[in-house]
Amino acid sequence: MVWRCETGGVPTTGLRERKREKTRDALAQSALRLFAERGFDRVTVEEIAAAHDLSARTFFRYFASKEDVLFSEGDRRRTHLLAALADQHPSARPFPALEAALRLVSTDYAQERDLLRLRHHVITSTPSLSTRAAERRQGWEGEVIDQLRTSGRADGMSDLELRLVVAATTTALQVAIETWVASDAPDLETILDEVFDRLRNGFGR
Amino acid sequence: MVWRCETGGVPTTGLRERKREKTRDALAQSALRLFAERGFDRVTVEEIAAAHDLSARTFFRYFASKEDVLFSEGDRRRTHLLAALADQHPSARPFPALEAALRLVSTDYAQERDLLRLRHHVITSTPSLSTRAAERRQGWEGEVIDQLRTSGRADGMSDLELRLVVAATTTALQVAIETWVASDAPDLETILDEVFDRLRNGFGR
Repeated sequence: MVWRCETGGVPTTGLRERKREKTRDALAQSALRLFAERGFDRVTVEEIAAAHDLSARTFFRYFASKEDVLFSEGDRRRTHLLAALADQHPSARPFPALEAALRLVSTDYAQERDLLRLRHHVITSTPSLSTRAAERRQGWEGEVIDQLRTSGRADGMSDLELRLVVAATTTALQVAIETWVASDAPDLETILDEVFDRLRNGFGR
Repeated sequence: MVWRCETGGVPTTGLRERKREKTRDALAQSALRLFAERGFDRVTVEEIAAAHDLSARTFFRYFASKEDVLFSEGDRRRTHLLAALADQHPSARPFPALEAALRLVSTDYAQERDLLRLRHHVITSTPSLSTRAAERRQGWEGEVIDQLRTSGRADGMSDLELRLVVAATTTALQVAIETWVASDAPDLETILDEVFDRLRNGFGR
């Protein structure tokens, strides 16, 4: 996972960093479980921290807020996506560039089906979180559109066309992930193959 | 507009019905303007009604709630869409059937750009309404999927494929309407032509 690579650093830093990440992951996992069991609004930061013998103050060294447990991973993925998009060959047009970048990012999801399922459940069952998630998705789409525009990939494309490519691709990724999260059988990659093939070839045949 | 046709009835009923609809439209228009000016939560039903020398009690003869002013038109459009979808030739597959039905429904929008613009502004600037709108869109998509499934049109299609067709088409319609509402120049039909052509032919070329 590109965005998790440590950029150099002596072994001690690496060890401390890994320990830090382990604590962070453990906090996130138990927070998600508590949210799913009792409802997001009924769980306090104190309880999440106490499950690991930590104080609320320590929790805030890992997450900026209770919402941040649900959304910080998304921030990392967005950074990852924008980097992956920038890395695509300059001549790649918006759709293939976006497909390649989204496929790279989706490898982050592949080992986290249970956590994604919990997260999805918590967000869809809490109206304020659904709103935040929708707003974030819009912001995320806006950034992708801006990057495709400034990189020159979208030259000659109307705003309508570019918005459509990005919105349709994002929607397709969401359908793919939701289908995968709700199922047990197939791996995410096979689902993504089907979905992107369909967008590439169109709904006409 | 199919769903507005009076089904027979003597002239007197028609006149009363038209008067009723005129009052309803006038109430909706001034409510939208008040919401846009002062914020949805700061406008009372009493104020909306008072602008037409009516009581709150009378308002509730036209709308079930304050939210209903924003969403009842959508209910009518959903009914219209499902009817238009059922009217398509039995052999039409999901994508062309959905395209034809959505084009029919979109003629309802064509004369209402200013109202749509106001409505869009009110909903996007009120978090609770954005949530309701998103939930409604999901319910709407679910009903379309159910109808396509039970009508036999989607026979041989996987759930993933059917969900993708519906989600991509809905998203495309939304992009088209948002682009049209935000602009002054082109008519909605030209935008829809471009958007549906692209979905039909795919993003691969």
